[in-house]
Amino acid sequence: MHDTFDTVITNVRIASMADNGQPYGTTSHTAVGIRSGKIAALFEELPADISATHTVDGNGQWLLPGLIDCHTHLIYAGDRANEFEMRLQGISYAEIAKQGGGIKSTVKATRQASEKALFDSAKQRAERLLEEGVTTLEIKSGYGLDLDTERRMLKVARQLEDALPVSVRTTFLGAHALPAEYSNDADGYISLVCDTMLPDIAANKLADAVDVFCESIGFTPAQTERVFQAAKAHGLPVKAHVEQLSDLKGAVLAANYDALSVDHIEYLAEEDVGHLKDTVAVLLPGAFYYLHETQKPPIEALRKQGIPMAVATDLNPGSSPLASLLTAMNMACVLFAITPEEALLGTTRHAAKALGLNDRGMIDEGLRADLTLWDIDHPAQLVYSINGQRPKARWVGGRHV
Amino acid sequence: MHDTFDTVITNVRIASMADNGQPYGTTSHTAVGIRSGKIAALFEELPADISATHTVDGNGQWLLPGLIDCHTHLIYAGDRANEFEMRLQGISYAEIAKQGGGIKSTVKATRQASEKALFDSAKQRAERLLEEGVTTLEIKSGYGLDLDTERRMLKVARQLEDALPVSVRTTFLGAHALPAEYSNDADGYISLVCDTMLPDIAANKLADAVDVFCESIGFTPAQTERVFQAAKAHGLPVKAHVEQLSDLKGAVLAANYDALSVDHIEYLAEEDVGHLKDTVAVLLPGAFYYLHETQKPPIEALRKQGIPMAVATDLNPGSSPLASLLTAMNMACVLFAITPEEALLGTTRHAAKALGLNDRGMIDEGLRADLTLWDIDHPAQLVYSINGQRPKARWVGGRHV
Ligand SMILES: [Zn+2]
Ligand SMILES: [Zn+2]
Repeated sequence: MHDTFDTVITNVRIASMADNGQPYGTTSHTAVGIRSGKIAALFEELPADISATHTVDGNGQWLLPGLIDCHTHLIYAGDRANEFEMRLQGISYAEIAKQGGGIKSTVKATRQASEKALFDSAKQRAERLLEEGVTTLEIKSGYGLDLDTERRMLKVARQLEDALPVSVRTTFLGAHALPAEYSNDADGYISLVCDTMLPDIAANKLADAVDVFCESIGFTPAQTERVFQAAKAHGLPVKAHVEQLSDLKGAVLAANYDALSVDHIEYLAEEDVGHLKDTVAVLLPGAFYYLHETQKPPIEALRKQGIPMAVATDLNPGSSPLASLLTAMNMACVLFAITPEEALLGTTRHAAKALGLNDRGMIDEGLRADLTLWDIDHPAQLVYSINGQRPKARWVGGRHV
Repeated sequence: MHDTFDTVITNVRIASMADNGQPYGTTSHTAVGIRSGKIAALFEELPADISATHTVDGNGQWLLPGLIDCHTHLIYAGDRANEFEMRLQGISYAEIAKQGGGIKSTVKATRQASEKALFDSAKQRAERLLEEGVTTLEIKSGYGLDLDTERRMLKVARQLEDALPVSVRTTFLGAHALPAEYSNDADGYISLVCDTMLPDIAANKLADAVDVFCESIGFTPAQTERVFQAAKAHGLPVKAHVEQLSDLKGAVLAANYDALSVDHIEYLAEEDVGHLKDTVAVLLPGAFYYLHETQKPPIEALRKQGIPMAVATDLNPGSSPLASLLTAMNMACVLFAITPEEALLGTTRHAAKALGLNDRGMIDEGLRADLTLWDIDHPAQLVYSINGQRPKARWVGGRHV
């Protein structure tokens, strides 16, 4: 029996987020032993005969899994604060679009930005999330819409993992919007995505998954399915932005392709919820809030059918400049009426599942030692306040950061 | 002519928030000289012959006045995350009240809390605000509802000013709610407030202003007026929580007593807006958000009549556990459709006016050197993102903190 650890964290209360029948997966353990980046042992009482290189006194605080933001677009150039301001000054969307606003302005700026410029600005945004306890982060491409820029975005995403104490999962979102040069040929652009971009990105292992914006203002279900087929052919799992503004049955289509997640889903019909089964429903209340949406996702149906729900920031420059996963959880509770426990499952266990990761998202023996320590009386406090809490300590892959 | 400064900040862009005809009060100055805690000089080009003990290169970043949160209840004991959770679990308000929830639970916990316990928890909340650039903070009493606890709260508020780099303005809010021991005698409690509590607090100089919660679930206009009269008799200016849930004409009453501000005002009638004149309308979007309110303040009428609007967190454990003034500004834009410039005026120039302070809230010669430096391209960026920005440097009364 091993009794030597790299780190032992003592005197903690544990919300494991595991499915053990207790709220927040609370356990009677009071100490955690970390070895080789993993949770090696959980103790109800710390044995006298163990040894550890580092021992940390948790002072009775709460230990939770590291948080997982499973849906972001945090690599981009340009800023759309000017658009935000113009809209509030009463200038119409049409006028803003005429002035080159909207996603087109982000694509233009991102195409022109150097790898270093993209890296520097994305790193700052990622740091805002990490300060809140995020230890795994998904990042999508989708502001290049040409092979060169999409590759650059995904490379920057990989670089962030080397530069910051965080795991990064990358998602190729070439089918995010139609670039100007294909403005009358969406099918032609989808051919470029499927036949040129995706094979190159898969060959270079730049993406862990493939995503599509299936929507009236995005791509049709038929176009979406072509991308799914190409992804499958290259061995990549799929995800999809679906039912954000209308019900195109994109979620059902995605589930048929074993999608890891379907994201937004405000307009998902209750009768379609049963199709999701193993696909995670990702709630993005930031976009709901910024866009003044009023249609809420079918929470009660998801809950009744036992569909796992995740919560993410959707951090992006247009519809959700929200650099706070804790605030996203709060918004999911206040705006969508999920419970604080569901919100925390949505940024731990269920968020891991939305990324196809089964080595994290809970505190259990054998899992990655991605951990956060909080000076709170109860886990619901993390969700209840806005900007009220920051972790007192964080471990990423066992490393104290 | 003086040409020696304690600190000179060079190479900045200035959003003075002064009324100079430019958006955000931008000026052509590029440097600020600080002496004896005040802004002593503004320079378009830094003269060669000046000297300074400290020189700070602003690197082309934006200099703004320190932010002012003009309405908080951040001193309290207990936590209402459990209530937040119970409501989202579908437990009714009535059942929560039966279990001792609501403001009663905060009053009970606050009465039992020691001065040190109140200080320690309030300091942590205040620090979350200060990290965002807050340099002046209003704090209300109102969770004691007895002389002893109200005094303790106000003393703790004064202590925070000594312990942290911030100016604190204190407000006596004895008429916040009816304590259990007066549950059938609101008039009797108002007599206690006016005849016992207020004279003591005024004599001990514990409060800079007096506030009342004038509302169907608070105090009537007649009771409110009694408190206003007592405040006037003791030479203290008044403020009021009015028209949050219904229109009792509390704002008009307050304006007749030259109130510094009327706060909440979702149900303020458009035809009453003209009565405000010199009284600041304080918008509190956090409570609007948490309470799922749908009635918005009469922004267009306030704007047309030139009534100054402020924005504050209303940081409190029940209806607005929002520890972020930047997020309050964002919510005021997104939920109430004010402009980013109005939001920033609401936490600088107009917030100073809501506290009766004419020595701050702008960058101008002779004013307090409460300053914040931001790595942004445009002031609207402070308001557009959530958790996206933190000041790169802060000065409070000329002191770099
Ligand atoms: Zn998205
Ligand atoms: Zn209040």
